[in-house]
Amino acid sequence: MVISQQIREFRKSSSWIRKMFESGIELKRKYGVDKVCDFSLGNPDLMPPDEFQYFLEEESRKTGPFLHGYMPNAGYVETREAVAESLRKEIGVDFTRDDVVMTCGAAGAMNVVLKSILNPGESVVILSPYFVEYKFYVLNHNGKIVVSETDERFLPDIADLESRIDGNTRAVIMNTPNNPTGRAYDEAILKQVGELLREKSKKYGKPIFLISDEPYRKIVFSDSKYFAPVKFYENTVIVTSFSKDLSIPGERIGYIAVNPVMENKEELIDACIFCNRILGFINAPALMQRVIRNVIEFSVDVEVYEKRRNLLFESLKDMGYDIVKPEGTFYMFPRSPIDDDVEFSKVLREELVLVTPGVGFGRAGYFRISFCVDEKVIKKSLERFERAIRKIR
Amino acid sequence: MVISQQIREFRKSSSWIRKMFESGIELKRKYGVDKVCDFSLGNPDLMPPDEFQYFLEEESRKTGPFLHGYMPNAGYVETREAVAESLRKEIGVDFTRDDVVMTCGAAGAMNVVLKSILNPGESVVILSPYFVEYKFYVLNHNGKIVVSETDERFLPDIADLESRIDGNTRAVIMNTPNNPTGRAYDEAILKQVGELLREKSKKYGKPIFLISDEPYRKIVFSDSKYFAPVKFYENTVIVTSFSKDLSIPGERIGYIAVNPVMENKEELIDACIFCNRILGFINAPALMQRVIRNVIEFSVDVEVYEKRRNLLFESLKDMGYDIVKPEGTFYMFPRSPIDDDVEFSKVLREELVLVTPGVGFGRAGYFRISFCVDEKVIKKSLERFERAIRKIR
Repeated sequence: MVISQQIREFRKSSSWIRKMFESGIELKRKYGVDKVCDFSLGNPDLMPPDEFQYFLEEESRKTGPFLHGYMPNAGYVETREAVAESLRKEIGVDFTRDDVVMTCGAAGAMNVVLKSILNPGESVVILSPYFVEYKFYVLNHNGKIVVSETDERFLPDIADLESRIDGNTRAVIMNTPNNPTGRAYDEAILKQVGELLREKSKKYGKPIFLISDEPYRKIVFSDSKYFAPVKFYENTVIVTSFSKDLSIPGERIGYIAVNPVMENKEELIDACIFCNRILGFINAPALMQRVIRNVIEFSVDVEVYEKRRNLLFESLKDMGYDIVKPEGTFYMFPRSPIDDDVEFSKVLREELVLVTPGVGFGRAGYFRISFCVDEKVIKKSLERFERAIRKIR
Repeated sequence: MVISQQIREFRKSSSWIRKMFESGIELKRKYGVDKVCDFSLGNPDLMPPDEFQYFLEEESRKTGPFLHGYMPNAGYVETREAVAESLRKEIGVDFTRDDVVMTCGAAGAMNVVLKSILNPGESVVILSPYFVEYKFYVLNHNGKIVVSETDERFLPDIADLESRIDGNTRAVIMNTPNNPTGRAYDEAILKQVGELLREKSKKYGKPIFLISDEPYRKIVFSDSKYFAPVKFYENTVIVTSFSKDLSIPGERIGYIAVNPVMENKEELIDACIFCNRILGFINAPALMQRVIRNVIEFSVDVEVYEKRRNLLFESLKDMGYDIVKPEGTFYMFPRSPIDDDVEFSKVLREELVLVTPGVGFGRAGYFRISFCVDEKVIKKSLERFERAIRKIR
């Protein structure tokens, strides 16, 4: 009884993912890294933009007392101002620096927001297929997970969502563009979600928060358009990071931005700053805060991801895979040609192709391809994907 | 009801600290920053060592894919190896890299360890006067706080500590050198603590962990000696950071190190790596991990802090203040010349001297002086401290 019961159960229930991960490592060891096409990881392979590199070196050269010291728990005023300004320009919502709290990535931001708002046993609705970590984040703060299935096109099913919300609901987590599906929600659906949550908040006499997880906001392809959830619902809290648009996920830098028109927003922001402190984050890393305020409008070359999406999507479709076309991110979520997605992942693994079964995202019968890999890897994988689908037909 | 009940209560109960903090800001605004002697903050004022600056610039210049990307949640192998090696040299305990998990500072480390081990309602013993954040950290993970008073010299009172431990006890948090008292525990007391916890673990048939919070380990003065708690008790988990020895608290880099001789340590380490992930830390900031592995044996010039301690300690003692001589850190914890430490802090504030009342550390009747301020500030403050003690006598 060295560790807590909860953590022990978590570890047991996720042991199949670990086994899969380990068998992938084993595969690479056996056949060589170059032989294996690994589409299972979400670690952006593009280099950070040159501007990031430039300002990283510039900020690193600066010396003086307190340059690496504590700052207010919300972050540097200048960085929060830069974030607010970028949101004003990008989204067209009138954020000020006081609406922004700098965090250790989006995962840190999400935990801070949940800690700030959740009373024990209150529920948080997540949309399936979902980023599996949401479950842990909600449970960390004694919340209850309620799952709403999205429709066949992976868009929120308003009727289902409505049926999941009751007097015990504290928040809905939404993620557009979406991991694992790559869908970017359109204006119409966001409007409906906003209306539903507004109505339910009124009915239950308390705000039901929309926590909008937006790390892929800038990774939207040219044939699609990004709509910001915050424009459609007053009780929206943005949690996001620079991990994907600057390719710096290891640096743990992101932020919370509270809709400036939210009622009593000061209380929520104060709570987030406080929880940033007591959860042990204290503040977002100092140097990265100084760097990103200079490069906030830059991002990696999204065209690279788009080209990969085109190649993969068109090729797999031609082979007979059933796929909803991703509009952003570096993921796609094809239907498994056989019902059992874990089984089909094994078929792919025999071809030295690693993917993640949909059951890991709460949607069996699908699998996730993460295409933050070189185009060469994608090209190499194509005949393997083809053999796999032929094999089971 | 925008935020949770718990957070609302936390905010209410700590509002007096905020008011004090704000009145300090007000004071500086009114009289000028230079006129106020601020001993209330724990933000190290010394510059990071030159070696840190050198390797920061060197590591920042490096370019390549994944240099700022995700790495295993435990941290870079090379960094963990460097930490293990430094512990072997410094403490003489046979740590390997597998015993080390890199974290977002000591506060992150502490939350990760508590999340890993605490079942709901289990208690954690903290020693008063204590670092007030411990309370939040334990409550974050549904633990219960039990306070054991240290003795008149601020050393653990073994009889009292024994009386606080029962079948519900999961861990004891210890902090040497100590914030707020500056005491560095000697060999004899650590031995007694180790024996007590060993006996209690045996009695209750489960490990009672000693969580050793060691961010001031390298800030020990020349007339004293540091003893490492991990050498005296097998179920010791070190949580610490580079915040104080490298003067980089804003960068959020620290680690967990589990005693290599602990039984079933693999399970605890695995849980810590997992909790580092699910609490939203994910991993310690990448660049800082790459920097600190080069400078792990360096530290700020401790002599500067020692000189300040000497000046303050000798001067205040001569004025009639009753102080236990600090052996490390940059804190001292004099007895308030009147019983009411909040009242005496106000007397000092009238002299434009800011300190923190002992009640904020769970020990009324004392106050904390944080001397991470320039010697000039200390010199300027002396006649003010003298006037204050005369005023109330």
